[in-house]
Amino acid sequence: MEQEPLLMIPGPVPIPQRVRAAMTRQAINHRGPEFGAAYAETVRTLKTLFGTANELYIISGSGSAGMEAGIANFARDKRIVSLVNGKFGDRFAKIAERYGTVTVLDSEWGTPLDLERLERELEAGAEVVTMVHNETSAGIKNPAPEVGRLARKHDALFIMDGVTSIGGDDVRMDEWGVDIAVVGSQKCLAAPAGLAAIAVGDRAWDRISEKRPFYLDMAAYRKSGRGTPMETPYTPAVPLFLALHEACTIIDEEGVPARIARHRRMADAVRAAAEAWGVDLFPTLDEHHAYSNTATALRIPDGLTDKDLRGTVKKFGIEIAGGQDHLKGKIFRIGTMGGVGAQEILATLAAVQFTLKKSGVAADDGVEAAAGVLLG
Amino acid sequence: MEQEPLLMIPGPVPIPQRVRAAMTRQAINHRGPEFGAAYAETVRTLKTLFGTANELYIISGSGSAGMEAGIANFARDKRIVSLVNGKFGDRFAKIAERYGTVTVLDSEWGTPLDLERLERELEAGAEVVTMVHNETSAGIKNPAPEVGRLARKHDALFIMDGVTSIGGDDVRMDEWGVDIAVVGSQKCLAAPAGLAAIAVGDRAWDRISEKRPFYLDMAAYRKSGRGTPMETPYTPAVPLFLALHEACTIIDEEGVPARIARHRRMADAVRAAAEAWGVDLFPTLDEHHAYSNTATALRIPDGLTDKDLRGTVKKFGIEIAGGQDHLKGKIFRIGTMGGVGAQEILATLAAVQFTLKKSGVAADDGVEAAAGVLLG
Repeated sequence: MEQEPLLMIPGPVPIPQRVRAAMTRQAINHRGPEFGAAYAETVRTLKTLFGTANELYIISGSGSAGMEAGIANFARDKRIVSLVNGKFGDRFAKIAERYGTVTVLDSEWGTPLDLERLERELEAGAEVVTMVHNETSAGIKNPAPEVGRLARKHDALFIMDGVTSIGGDDVRMDEWGVDIAVVGSQKCLAAPAGLAAIAVGDRAWDRISEKRPFYLDMAAYRKSGRGTPMETPYTPAVPLFLALHEACTIIDEEGVPARIARHRRMADAVRAAAEAWGVDLFPTLDEHHAYSNTATALRIPDGLTDKDLRGTVKKFGIEIAGGQDHLKGKIFRIGTMGGVGAQEILATLAAVQFTLKKSGVAADDGVEAAAGVLLG
Repeated sequence: MEQEPLLMIPGPVPIPQRVRAAMTRQAINHRGPEFGAAYAETVRTLKTLFGTANELYIISGSGSAGMEAGIANFARDKRIVSLVNGKFGDRFAKIAERYGTVTVLDSEWGTPLDLERLERELEAGAEVVTMVHNETSAGIKNPAPEVGRLARKHDALFIMDGVTSIGGDDVRMDEWGVDIAVVGSQKCLAAPAGLAAIAVGDRAWDRISEKRPFYLDMAAYRKSGRGTPMETPYTPAVPLFLALHEACTIIDEEGVPARIARHRRMADAVRAAAEAWGVDLFPTLDEHHAYSNTATALRIPDGLTDKDLRGTVKKFGIEIAGGQDHLKGKIFRIGTMGGVGAQEILATLAAVQFTLKKSGVAADDGVEAAAGVLLG
């Protein structure tokens, strides 16, 4: 019997059976009360995960569509500073470049963002800041509270990519001064790919552009979203809404603090294994930056290739991620997002450990160290 | 036992069990060969339905997103003529207005488009024509071959909304001179809502704009779509792709000519019932225009309200559509799209007939007339 592969990558993640089953029912009218109630309930849960009382709407599109909605509606023709220390920061800057005048503040991938340069740009009149909160390409968590504070101080808008943090790590949109935040459905929420949720604060609504795209027009989402029943402006991806609704029900059942604690424990377990193996974590941190709690990036030890490592792990039916772009062959990444728990972590670390030991690059028992962390 | 409602509206339509079941499997890697093969096979079937040898890509978004992709990439800053004789023509014009200079050629909803005025606009230098092929808001089919011929004659691009015709009626993109055509997943294809497919011909590719949106950047779709495995530029709505793939397998099994013939027969049956009842069809036709074969619009007879009509039909678990905007209360619409057949048509017409007879506005047996048509 062939098992379905276990995806331990930084998204998409395994989808709980209940969530998948929610998609099997017959089409329902997306202008009716049942759809509206599901939409509204999903929004309620998501607001808790975002840490916000702001309006929040769901777009039928990927996380990138959500980010583009933020830029195209609220940063058009503006001076934008894009903080970049990984692939998704880079993508966010590329989206911004389609609409505004962008200054990219580049750091080596996986190294701290330069907050001093950010402040100088804000002093020089930058109107919008973009940042990826949790940069899975490098396993680093960026300092949202500090960036939010600086943006507020200089009256700039702060647009945050929370695609891989929201739902798995602590996010406090309102407390941190984030004006626009976006999450994707297929990461920590453990729903299928294809939806993005975007929360927008009053400071952003006050500055909405006159010129807006059509499908990603946030004024249209607001208009349809405020009605009864709650609706989307254009035909939504109905099965994905029903799936995300069920995923949010599961999140409500677990409770947000427990969910965040579980994600932290899973990442702690992976880091404990790495320490026992003597495998270096990839990111370089400072006092403002931390290791990601939803994706851990590790250096591939000398004496082992990316292909051998991931190929051997895959023989056990488990997929972990390699490095992207110039990090290909240099790092590997283990996602610990969504509904997975001790079973999946232990299996994954055991498969990695088998590969490391076989290649003679690690001797000590990282799995045991991780197991200890998982039991708390 | 409460039945799932039968949606006999102009989309979304009932989704076959096989198609819904395709969404229940675990998440698969959307950068892998299995996803790529499903995408490529789906594209192959869709090209047959579009009547095209052009490149065709699938966007995770609604039909409106597909239309915006056509406009934003290929009509930006251009002189656009938008033909309008219904709600979706109007929406297409509104999308066009976000990107170019638009002349709207307005006809009363459900009446013929003015091809003479179109030719004058083309002679005056219009560069792009937009038209909805099958205008479900009014039950009219617009003259794609004639518009294509005029656009070619004057070297303009022709962008056609085929959202509710492709897969259910005869469409010959290449033969008719359509440069860009779009279909939605939840109409004649009988898949869930949430995907749009867009086919783009060489004349359009040659004129692609330098300035493009990000999520709907057709150059990005082309780049990812030409690789092996076939990919999308951003994370796709994986379950919806798998569902559409299964829907296309069903279409291949039925065969395209048989599918189109079935749609025609269903619409013929509805029209035969209307004639027997003495209920007027809504559209006014000329030699270039025809009744829609996927959605029939009928005038609500005197002595009956929209609420009574649709409310009574709904008591049988069947949803038919009312009029939109200024046609609300004046017409009702029966969708005959996708996987439905004689069972659904007979049930729907019987429920409508019951309501008409109860109100004393029709006496004759439209169901019998329809049944005769269905048996051929």
